[in-house]
Amino acid sequence: MKLTFSPASPFARKVRIAAIELGLIDRIELVPVTVGPGQPNEDYAKLYPLKKLPVLILDNGDIVVDSYVIVEYLDELAGGGRLIPASGALKWKVKSDHSLLQGMLDSMLLCRYENLTRPEALRWKAWTDDHWNRAWMGMAQFDAKVDAMQARPLDIAQIALTCVLGYADFRFADCGWRKAYPRLDAFHQKMLERPSVKVSLPPA
Amino acid sequence: MKLTFSPASPFARKVRIAAIELGLIDRIELVPVTVGPGQPNEDYAKLYPLKKLPVLILDNGDIVVDSYVIVEYLDELAGGGRLIPASGALKWKVKSDHSLLQGMLDSMLLCRYENLTRPEALRWKAWTDDHWNRAWMGMAQFDAKVDAMQARPLDIAQIALTCVLGYADFRFADCGWRKAYPRLDAFHQKMLERPSVKVSLPPA
Repeated sequence: MKLTFSPASPFARKVRIAAIELGLIDRIELVPVTVGPGQPNEDYAKLYPLKKLPVLILDNGDIVVDSYVIVEYLDELAGGGRLIPASGALKWKVKSDHSLLQGMLDSMLLCRYENLTRPEALRWKAWTDDHWNRAWMGMAQFDAKVDAMQARPLDIAQIALTCVLGYADFRFADCGWRKAYPRLDAFHQKMLERPSVKVSLPPA
Repeated sequence: MKLTFSPASPFARKVRIAAIELGLIDRIELVPVTVGPGQPNEDYAKLYPLKKLPVLILDNGDIVVDSYVIVEYLDELAGGGRLIPASGALKWKVKSDHSLLQGMLDSMLLCRYENLTRPEALRWKAWTDDHWNRAWMGMAQFDAKVDAMQARPLDIAQIALTCVLGYADFRFADCGWRKAYPRLDAFHQKMLERPSVKVSLPPA
């Protein structure tokens, strides 16, 4: 299998961590792709019109998207119920937590595009404030429940939370999440003990 | 159960259609909520920091998000494997198709926010062009395969495609998708024969 990849993409990182934890990383070739809003990349758009990372390309040419569905696919390949609980109330809690984290990342990327990619004269502070606030209030929710999350076996929500915090360090280094959310800081440090999390840190 | 809802939201429409098709709509109270970028809604943000629709609120107070996970939840409640194939290659095809359609809707909403919500002086054409192009190229992919999709029992990808096309009519009435993609037009007309699709059309 091939996975379109960039070390800067928090979504690609999530899949990479999951693949390592599931023992599947040796079956996946990471294929570097550069994408960004306003940057044409016609070959990649033909493969996946959203031009997002990552895309899993199976050996028969079929593609699996998006990062969540890819993790589901890999989880099933590894036997099922490994990173996504197979049944019960916990299944829906983990899936819903993951959806919130995915949306927090989407909002953080929108802030990044607004602050960096968009011409300076066209930036709209109310937009960035709103989207940053979604991520920040999301962090507050996870700070309140991260100890309970961490008491469970590793799952896709814990991996996604790690990717949110790593992306905050990578692109919003001065946002002060560690001071505001000390339980998330403790969680992040603990997660960094995993080789999968450490090896996939975004570039300095 | 309660579902936060707006008749203008294509994501809420998807869940509503699914709930009707699964025979569960009578167990769901639709709760109107108004959200939008830059509009504060602190009560709703406390429930769900992304402030997105829809959110399913279970009778015990737990929430299930996002629209895809809600459909998964309802599908399981209705016995499983109804709108999302339970196994096999088709499962991943339907899930991946749905992810693409979900991303197309995200891009269409970003175009809408750019063209309507953002102050006119701050609009960036390259952004809108890029996101519209993602939706448009996505439609081209579905136009090429919609006949094969339609030959299968109803699934979440067909419902999501219906919501994409309905949203195009609702917010981009002059985009010309029917002329560009006649097979999608035929698909959409066929879907409109379903009461679930007809009753959930966005307001005129």
